[in-house]
Amino acid sequence: MAVYTEVGDEELDDLVAQYDIGRVVSCKGIAEGVENSNFLLQTDAGTYILTLYEKRVDAADLPFFLGLMDHLAAGGLACPRPIHGRDGKALRSVAGRPAAIIEFLQGRWPRRPKPVHCAELGKAMAELHNAARDFPMRRPNALAIGDWRPLFEACKDRADEVHAGLAADLERELDTLEASWPSGLPDGVIHADLFPDNVFFLDNRLSGLIDFYFACNDFLCYDVAICLNAWCFETDGSFNVTKARVMLQAYREVREITESEYYTLPILARGSAMRFLLTRLYDWLNHPEGAFVQPKDPLEYYAKMRFHRAIIGPSAYGLDY
Amino acid sequence: MAVYTEVGDEELDDLVAQYDIGRVVSCKGIAEGVENSNFLLQTDAGTYILTLYEKRVDAADLPFFLGLMDHLAAGGLACPRPIHGRDGKALRSVAGRPAAIIEFLQGRWPRRPKPVHCAELGKAMAELHNAARDFPMRRPNALAIGDWRPLFEACKDRADEVHAGLAADLERELDTLEASWPSGLPDGVIHADLFPDNVFFLDNRLSGLIDFYFACNDFLCYDVAICLNAWCFETDGSFNVTKARVMLQAYREVREITESEYYTLPILARGSAMRFLLTRLYDWLNHPEGAFVQPKDPLEYYAKMRFHRAIIGPSAYGLDY
Repeated sequence: MAVYTEVGDEELDDLVAQYDIGRVVSCKGIAEGVENSNFLLQTDAGTYILTLYEKRVDAADLPFFLGLMDHLAAGGLACPRPIHGRDGKALRSVAGRPAAIIEFLQGRWPRRPKPVHCAELGKAMAELHNAARDFPMRRPNALAIGDWRPLFEACKDRADEVHAGLAADLERELDTLEASWPSGLPDGVIHADLFPDNVFFLDNRLSGLIDFYFACNDFLCYDVAICLNAWCFETDGSFNVTKARVMLQAYREVREITESEYYTLPILARGSAMRFLLTRLYDWLNHPEGAFVQPKDPLEYYAKMRFHRAIIGPSAYGLDY
Repeated sequence: MAVYTEVGDEELDDLVAQYDIGRVVSCKGIAEGVENSNFLLQTDAGTYILTLYEKRVDAADLPFFLGLMDHLAAGGLACPRPIHGRDGKALRSVAGRPAAIIEFLQGRWPRRPKPVHCAELGKAMAELHNAARDFPMRRPNALAIGDWRPLFEACKDRADEVHAGLAADLERELDTLEASWPSGLPDGVIHADLFPDNVFFLDNRLSGLIDFYFACNDFLCYDVAICLNAWCFETDGSFNVTKARVMLQAYREVREITESEYYTLPILARGSAMRFLLTRLYDWLNHPEGAFVQPKDPLEYYAKMRFHRAIIGPSAYGLDY
């Protein structure tokens, strides 16, 4: 839950005056999102999201993120469009922060995803991968496999405070991942953060994807692996193979999963678990006392990593090849 | 900033189904308000606020608060109405908490109040006092003068951690307040928490008052004293007599300020400063490590208390009698 930056009255009016979206009737900070400050902005013309990009977002990446959203929406993907001002620009500055006004997307993210949500997600993810194919900009994944070891090194000495033996196990796992990470898989733009709170539904139909601020170029199936972890485990830690199967099937109906993608899915899933485990572990060990944002439990992703390590192959995800 | 309780998807749908307000298209936690969990609820019929009342609100008081809002809105005051379900009830239970859906009020609260806002506030406060006159329910002020000494006793031993000499000064001030607190002033229902974040404006016109969860029966001019403190000091601590004058004048144009009210305004203002100083001091000394909500600075109100102690009389507020 996060609003890090306050926006003054005149400043907001001055901002909105640069767009053709009417005049402000309400602006309320939203208690969702941890990286940026988000406001639900109502004007007499409609509802919008005003986002102020905080420190964790590199301002140099914003043209990629906003351009991608424009591109995907133009390509028919259900995602909000950045609003462009009369000068054509979507990105500007508010309260000393880069800022953008984004279309408001109807829907709610599912607190307890069901198989129907996973199927919808699989379809939309494949549509995203297809729609981004001709997006001309590139952004390397800032949390790709090459970035995990430095992150691990920064946590290693204190990892066992969180779980006995964690440091040694993660070191071995990193060795394995680095040695067996695939190459040459189909790549393109991925969302890279398709957690349930970034996927909105109306009456069990997907209404849109949001929060493209981790989007980057990587293996397309790495996105699928992230979603296996984020959507297909129950809160008790058990893997729900039905959810995985319907997600993968729905994905495959829109975009083919190649044989090499299929067989590397377990290692991609282990890698995705490592990536979220490490960033959570880092935040867990380094979050300031009294911080607004409660850090997420890194051990949730340790359990997921061990699940993928123990399976006999990708058929454990409910999909045959 | 606060959302303490999550509401499940089905639970929200079940709740909304009890009202004639359409179906949910969006529900987002709002990062405003510290006492309760607030959500901006959008349905295909309109926008609403869903409030879940958390521990600090006594559920037994809710019929008073909601009934008052109904009464004031019916009397023409600009304030949101509780929405009543098909069974006629406004108060129900969600996620184990008492909950209500309230009309959404357009407008923004002023981050930097100007005299024009203070004048609008004075008028609306007097309208509130008038409109509440025939409200049949009563609620004693839970933070009235009799409650300050126990609060002080709970802080006394550590008060000097916040400011050297604070404990002794507050003890003397409490003695003075108790000895000279007026009696027999005009009383009625007051808002008791009319801070800028509870007063909304559209283009410098007041669009409504919100957050009646401290409303109670007390001296009407105690509300005025609270507003002198909350609206008429600059961020540098200086008192802006122009703001006070226009607020009091606008109030007086709607509801007469009696002579005894006028002459007791400085002691009421000292008392109001004491009340907010003490609750802030208590929260400052007792807030848990790592809490969401940053406690407010108690010394802001210590400075205000000393201002009212130093003036020669109510003419310092810019108003003659």
